[in-house]
Amino acid sequence: MRLTRYFLPVLKETPSEAQIVSHRLMLRAGMIKQAAAGIYSWLPLGFKVLRKLEDIVHEEQQRAGHIPMLMPTLQSADLWRESGRYDDYGEEMLRIKDRHGRDMLYGPTNEELITDIFRSHVGSYKDLPLTLYHVQWKFRDEIRPRFGVMRGREFFMKDGYNFDLTKEAALHAYNRHLVSYLRTYERMGLQAIPMRADGGPIGGDYTHEFLVLAETGESEVFYDSAVTDLSFGDRQIDYDDHAQCAAVLEEFTSKYARTDETHDEALFNEVPEERRRSARGIEVGQIFYFGTKYSEAMGATVQGPDGQVVPVHMGSHGIGVSRLLGAIIEASHDERGIIWPEGVTPFHVGIVNLKQGDAEADAACEALYASLTALGLEPLYDDRDERAGGKFATMDLVGLPWRITVGPRGLKNGVVELTSRRSGESEELPPEEAVQRLVQIYAGRA
Amino acid sequence: MRLTRYFLPVLKETPSEAQIVSHRLMLRAGMIKQAAAGIYSWLPLGFKVLRKLEDIVHEEQQRAGHIPMLMPTLQSADLWRESGRYDDYGEEMLRIKDRHGRDMLYGPTNEELITDIFRSHVGSYKDLPLTLYHVQWKFRDEIRPRFGVMRGREFFMKDGYNFDLTKEAALHAYNRHLVSYLRTYERMGLQAIPMRADGGPIGGDYTHEFLVLAETGESEVFYDSAVTDLSFGDRQIDYDDHAQCAAVLEEFTSKYARTDETHDEALFNEVPEERRRSARGIEVGQIFYFGTKYSEAMGATVQGPDGQVVPVHMGSHGIGVSRLLGAIIEASHDERGIIWPEGVTPFHVGIVNLKQGDAEADAACEALYASLTALGLEPLYDDRDERAGGKFATMDLVGLPWRITVGPRGLKNGVVELTSRRSGESEELPPEEAVQRLVQIYAGRA
Repeated sequence: MRLTRYFLPVLKETPSEAQIVSHRLMLRAGMIKQAAAGIYSWLPLGFKVLRKLEDIVHEEQQRAGHIPMLMPTLQSADLWRESGRYDDYGEEMLRIKDRHGRDMLYGPTNEELITDIFRSHVGSYKDLPLTLYHVQWKFRDEIRPRFGVMRGREFFMKDGYNFDLTKEAALHAYNRHLVSYLRTYERMGLQAIPMRADGGPIGGDYTHEFLVLAETGESEVFYDSAVTDLSFGDRQIDYDDHAQCAAVLEEFTSKYARTDETHDEALFNEVPEERRRSARGIEVGQIFYFGTKYSEAMGATVQGPDGQVVPVHMGSHGIGVSRLLGAIIEASHDERGIIWPEGVTPFHVGIVNLKQGDAEADAACEALYASLTALGLEPLYDDRDERAGGKFATMDLVGLPWRITVGPRGLKNGVVELTSRRSGESEELPPEEAVQRLVQIYAGRA
Repeated sequence: MRLTRYFLPVLKETPSEAQIVSHRLMLRAGMIKQAAAGIYSWLPLGFKVLRKLEDIVHEEQQRAGHIPMLMPTLQSADLWRESGRYDDYGEEMLRIKDRHGRDMLYGPTNEELITDIFRSHVGSYKDLPLTLYHVQWKFRDEIRPRFGVMRGREFFMKDGYNFDLTKEAALHAYNRHLVSYLRTYERMGLQAIPMRADGGPIGGDYTHEFLVLAETGESEVFYDSAVTDLSFGDRQIDYDDHAQCAAVLEEFTSKYARTDETHDEALFNEVPEERRRSARGIEVGQIFYFGTKYSEAMGATVQGPDGQVVPVHMGSHGIGVSRLLGAIIEASHDERGIIWPEGVTPFHVGIVNLKQGDAEADAACEALYASLTALGLEPLYDDRDERAGGKFATMDLVGLPWRITVGPRGLKNGVVELTSRRSGESEELPPEEAVQRLVQIYAGRA
């Protein structure tokens, strides 16, 4: 993309309404614009990252054998009366009357709707196991929305639901989700630690939250520092293998890691003192096993192999996709702006032309642009007629992990400059070598 | 995808509530399920097609130089009061009060919100031309929703907005959209005829609707049969070239083609009698140029090259993405089910195993599955333990354009059967040749 043909309205001033760094940087980098309290328009750069995160979620969900679908944003109140949650949910549920006076709501989650779909179409154990998921806009009418997309009212979330014949099978689904979530977050450049959590209004005894450590996190967390040494890496997992998935759960959850909701001082004190940590964390996902809570209330049953009709065992599993943008920025920025991890960066590399209008510099930039594009990489070319300082500031703010700087002086020696946003280190090398270096960096994740 | 691991709840009976064929077939093929009046859940097969249509729209919009972003579903009423449409819009607008009693609405369209974004960030002619678009869920509270996704209340729509300094530049944006829409519909296997239309509540003198001819269409249309001979084909277009885009508009709109709203009997009678046609059509898109209607009302101005501050010229452009599924099926089906055009089919080919459990047949199907997948094609493998008749009926209903039938008798002769859903013609050939044939068929559109 050429910047002169893009819409990237960066702000010079720091917006006064933003209290945390991710909100400030998303506004300054022209990623979002508030449309109403807690409701945002995703400007082109913000949308591009949002879509990348959504794509990663889809890929990892389908790798785990989960099936994508899409439920609507608005729901009828009737289903929520069946489960008893219409009255329980409180003021965070946005209640709506349509022109005929029928009670509707903007879905904050979808246990009822998916259970209704299941009970309408599935009647036999032979159709199990089954996990359906979608990535859709939700609404929670927060009394005091704040922190930008981190605590918005309209938010984009992946929520998935598993249906299984037995508790044991459902717990495998639980483990499988834990594994796929670990992979998902790592691809996004995040370390998200599974922590024992509280069921809340969804219910259930088995539940883990995934937390990204960050000073601005809303939760206080307590953990054994050994958990931060774990990484999923590129290990191959057979998602149908119960033992393999259970082993990953064991590995990643046996060390102490809890939020303040479930914190147990006595247990914590059994961790060697030098490994005891307390910090703040941002919740970016949660998984639940809640058994037959909804299937019994709503009559979602199957006939088992023995001919008996039994309610199915269920769980639900969520990733806060729009909130993840904020979490990634909280975890990865400096005083000059955002630093995108390679897996989610909106553009792979920025091209800065130090002397726009200079025939040789322009031609070199165009050639770089063409070869990067031909190799499947997306450059953002700052082709504005502006000072180098302004171009560097914009690139640093926007946070692309790599920058190629092209100027007449370097070109005389046949080189351009390749700079890492994270380390700040630069290297001079011929343009075609810079391109090859980027191809290697992004191999397998472009 | 293996059918035993998918969620494809086909119905044997014809649902009584469905009045038109696309609605019946979408329900029977397990693509949608009604969640509330005019609101649908998109089951996995329906979601897969919806996503393909969305992807085609994104690709063609970006090819034309338009920039993707995403506006929220809910909006504040204040902006609509500025334009005067809050009171004008009538009962089709879903009005909502949040917990603080603030007036909100579920966006039926986004002229106000995009104009607000523009005026907040753009002040100079140097940032023009600019076209922003998004694909997002909308809501119109139809008094009597019907025909499934064709006239739903919650629907998925691409809407784009151009901002230009002059009327002439805005009319180029209009022409450019017409060209990109022609390409978009043809990729979906549809002939959508641009017809002179009426501005309606969006306003404007320049407007064309795109109509797909179908008996169940809601509009009566009148046209010169010569328009149905036109096709965009794979011509190369430079979207920055005003003359090229204008020539396409001229070619596709100079022949008589109008809806009943703008029909002119006298003009129509100038068409040679043997080429005069009246029929019914489904509206699948509309483009507008409405000048400074919103920019004047909302103060969206730029400083021109002469230093003068002027309101920008705008247009808006919509494609009904969810409705397109219905339109495609109305235009392409037979008594046995859907017939997907290759460009939008949810799976590229079905594999029917005539003797599930037979070691040789199973192995041949698995080998086909593996080689198709390795070549980037997506097969749907019916691996259920069911009669051949039931498997064929499901494949015909679901409408994949190609089917490979694998059975012990053919395998003895080293062949499988490749069948076209559209023509019904079958050919026996070695499995690897069937795979190569499919690769050729889908070249460039898989």
